[in-house]
Amino acid sequence: MKAPDVDRGVFKQVRSGIVTLLTDFGIDDYFVGAMKGVILGRFAQAVLVDITHNIPPQDICAAAFTLFAAHRNFPPGTVHLAVVDPGVGSDRRPVIVETEDHLFVGPDNGLFSPVLSLYPNARVRHVTNSAYFLANVSATFHGRDIFAPVAAAVAQGAAPELMGPTIQNPVLLKSNVFDPKADFALAGSIIHIDRFGNCVTSFAWERVQEFSGGRSIRFRLKDFEITKQLQCYEHATLGPDQPFIIVGSSGFLEISIWTGSAARFLKVGVGEPVHLEVV
Amino acid sequence: MKAPDVDRGVFKQVRSGIVTLLTDFGIDDYFVGAMKGVILGRFAQAVLVDITHNIPPQDICAAAFTLFAAHRNFPPGTVHLAVVDPGVGSDRRPVIVETEDHLFVGPDNGLFSPVLSLYPNARVRHVTNSAYFLANVSATFHGRDIFAPVAAAVAQGAAPELMGPTIQNPVLLKSNVFDPKADFALAGSIIHIDRFGNCVTSFAWERVQEFSGGRSIRFRLKDFEITKQLQCYEHATLGPDQPFIIVGSSGFLEISIWTGSAARFLKVGVGEPVHLEVV
Amino acid sequence: MKAPDVDRGVFKQVRSGIVTLLTDFGIDDYFVGAMKGVILGRFAQAVLVDITHNIPPQDICAAAFTLFAAHRNFPPGTVHLAVVDPGVGSDRRPVIVETEDHLFVGPDNGLFSPVLSLYPNARVRHVTNSAYFLANVSATFHGRDIFAPVAAAVAQGAAPELMGPTIQNPVLLKSNVFDPKADFALAGSIIHIDRFGNCVTSFAWERVQEFSGGRSIRFRLKDFEITKQLQCYEHATLGPDQPFIIVGSSGFLEISIWTGSAARFLKVGVGEPVHLEVV
Repeated sequence: MKAPDVDRGVFKQVRSGIVTLLTDFGIDDYFVGAMKGVILGRFAQAVLVDITHNIPPQDICAAAFTLFAAHRNFPPGTVHLAVVDPGVGSDRRPVIVETEDHLFVGPDNGLFSPVLSLYPNARVRHVTNSAYFLANVSATFHGRDIFAPVAAAVAQGAAPELMGPTIQNPVLLKSNVFDPKADFALAGSIIHIDRFGNCVTSFAWERVQEFSGGRSIRFRLKDFEITKQLQCYEHATLGPDQPFIIVGSSGFLEISIWTGSAARFLKVGVGEPVHLEVV
Repeated sequence: MKAPDVDRGVFKQVRSGIVTLLTDFGIDDYFVGAMKGVILGRFAQAVLVDITHNIPPQDICAAAFTLFAAHRNFPPGTVHLAVVDPGVGSDRRPVIVETEDHLFVGPDNGLFSPVLSLYPNARVRHVTNSAYFLANVSATFHGRDIFAPVAAAVAQGAAPELMGPTIQNPVLLKSNVFDPKADFALAGSIIHIDRFGNCVTSFAWERVQEFSGGRSIRFRLKDFEITKQLQCYEHATLGPDQPFIIVGSSGFLEISIWTGSAARFLKVGVGEPVHLEVV
Repeated sequence: MKAPDVDRGVFKQVRSGIVTLLTDFGIDDYFVGAMKGVILGRFAQAVLVDITHNIPPQDICAAAFTLFAAHRNFPPGTVHLAVVDPGVGSDRRPVIVETEDHLFVGPDNGLFSPVLSLYPNARVRHVTNSAYFLANVSATFHGRDIFAPVAAAVAQGAAPELMGPTIQNPVLLKSNVFDPKADFALAGSIIHIDRFGNCVTSFAWERVQEFSGGRSIRFRLKDFEITKQLQCYEHATLGPDQPFIIVGSSGFLEISIWTGSAARFLKVGVGEPVHLEVV
């Protein structure tokens, strides 16, 4: 009689057939097309969805935020292929991350740090089974030669345990700014600026609510004190020189300006320190 | 005996399963990926096609032109999801527009103005049935929380009348520059400049033909008088300093230059007045 | 008794259903969406994959390289639709290129030159059968009106010989810099610069190996002599001012810099001469 296979039991998702792609490859080169060709060559029914390919080159932090914000909108059993990989060709490990609902494939460099924080019982595997790789692995394009075919196999239903052994020490980003479960910190920062100039802060609204107990909050950054908190953009009756706080669609507090770019108004970029105070 | 259901009868399209997407979200953020995840989570067989996500932020006019020019190439029963939505979070209405062949989902802010002009018997509904929305509608991202799931439901075959009541007063753009059925006006403008620098004018070729009765036309804009009308680019034997008139692929007259950017040569942008004269 | 149909026999691929798209249309306009609408209207099960739409306007050389580098990653029976078409509306021929594994559709202007060099037994047809075109072919947008519907038909299984007669004189690029089978030439050039600033040279690694017989090589360009050849980026222990040679993922030798842009460091662009010496 076979003992229960604990390893398989926890994460036995049905696959959605969807493979999302997130890279810093841009959309001018042949890189993304090459990855998609490999996936479709291995798994013809794959449904390919681009998250973005315009992560700033080698910016693992930006990729980690974007992956974190996007993945939750996909159905269970989706494979998220993320390749921002400054260490390509080195001995950094290729990994698969399994959570209850999602699978992630990419390099072990911190890219999955926020996801691992959100899903504490996630399992991480070192992808070592080269039977799933392309026949000739290049030194410079593991996105095509390793990650794409592995993602295709897993999206098609291959069990992650076929890919390699679990590991306990995945690389984590040093900062915990993305961590929605981390202890609340008064000192945060701007972690992303979107196309509209909205400044996403490291403060998760869920955590802020627990911390503030319903009292008002304010932000301080540079010489600015921002006290107004709005429910949506349209309700804004503030002028174009009055930034306000709003709960962003990713679940983090953002700083916005009515019909303008808060980033340009505040003259801030990613990394700018933001202090939150309960008043 | 049930009376004929007039409301359903007119627009009982078979669905193509295609959902096109047109937004001003750009392709650097997670926004487009999030919308696609929601659609595929609701309707796994959806065929997603990007029109563009690079509409200038909050430029309803540009979005209206691009949607108008693109939609006709899609098969009947396609759902066109268009989200350029400066009023997100306000009480601007989410709407569905039904025409004989196409379905449109987005905010009621003028985005569908040219389509409504092209299809006078189009029906517009105020989307009020929140049973089709995501469980928690955010204040800032109705593209994901309202429009995407509604588009998915309709693309899958849900009847538009399930979404809400018809309305008679959809928001229309003040200008009729896009209106291919409007009375011919000698005073027009440049409504779009494409990647190659071709300047799309507000003059629909079909209307110009009726108006001119086959006589020659000329454009005046700024200090330029443009008289040469060509059938295609290659026939151009004009120099790089001689702009010409050509029927563009969207059906509007365009101003072009042989192997160069007419916009740069003329030093014009969108909105520049253009006068058409029959000679 | 019917004689064997030689014409059909050689290239009777099963189709993958995939249509790749490569253009210089950019992603801001409705052009790409219009082409996809036409394809899906003709062949609803088509799987559409963008290679890129950001080829510099009318840069046939850049398009030829990107198509060459990307196509090999797709499964047999894929149709590659490539439209960089400065001669649209002239009498330049629309063509189909058939190789053992792939089909290519686009204008006869050199775009398929590297592919024809790679597959010497490729067959080229002049697409003349207007029954496959849209009903009204515009003067300026053959991508939508001719190439898209032809690609759709072929991807769905239509035999290329239905489209038109074979031709023996396809347009070839004057330079053979992309030719992986050309005689080795010591004088080459930079043929592409990717997003990361890596400089792709015209030297195919396979050919260089034959030529050098395993001896060391070095590059000379401008005042630089580059001697270091690395297996991958990570092994680089060189400083940010030391460019090195690496085998790129397209099979050509590239010049890179450790965590920086080689193109910016060397102050070079596409076309810069590069000399290869065996030492």
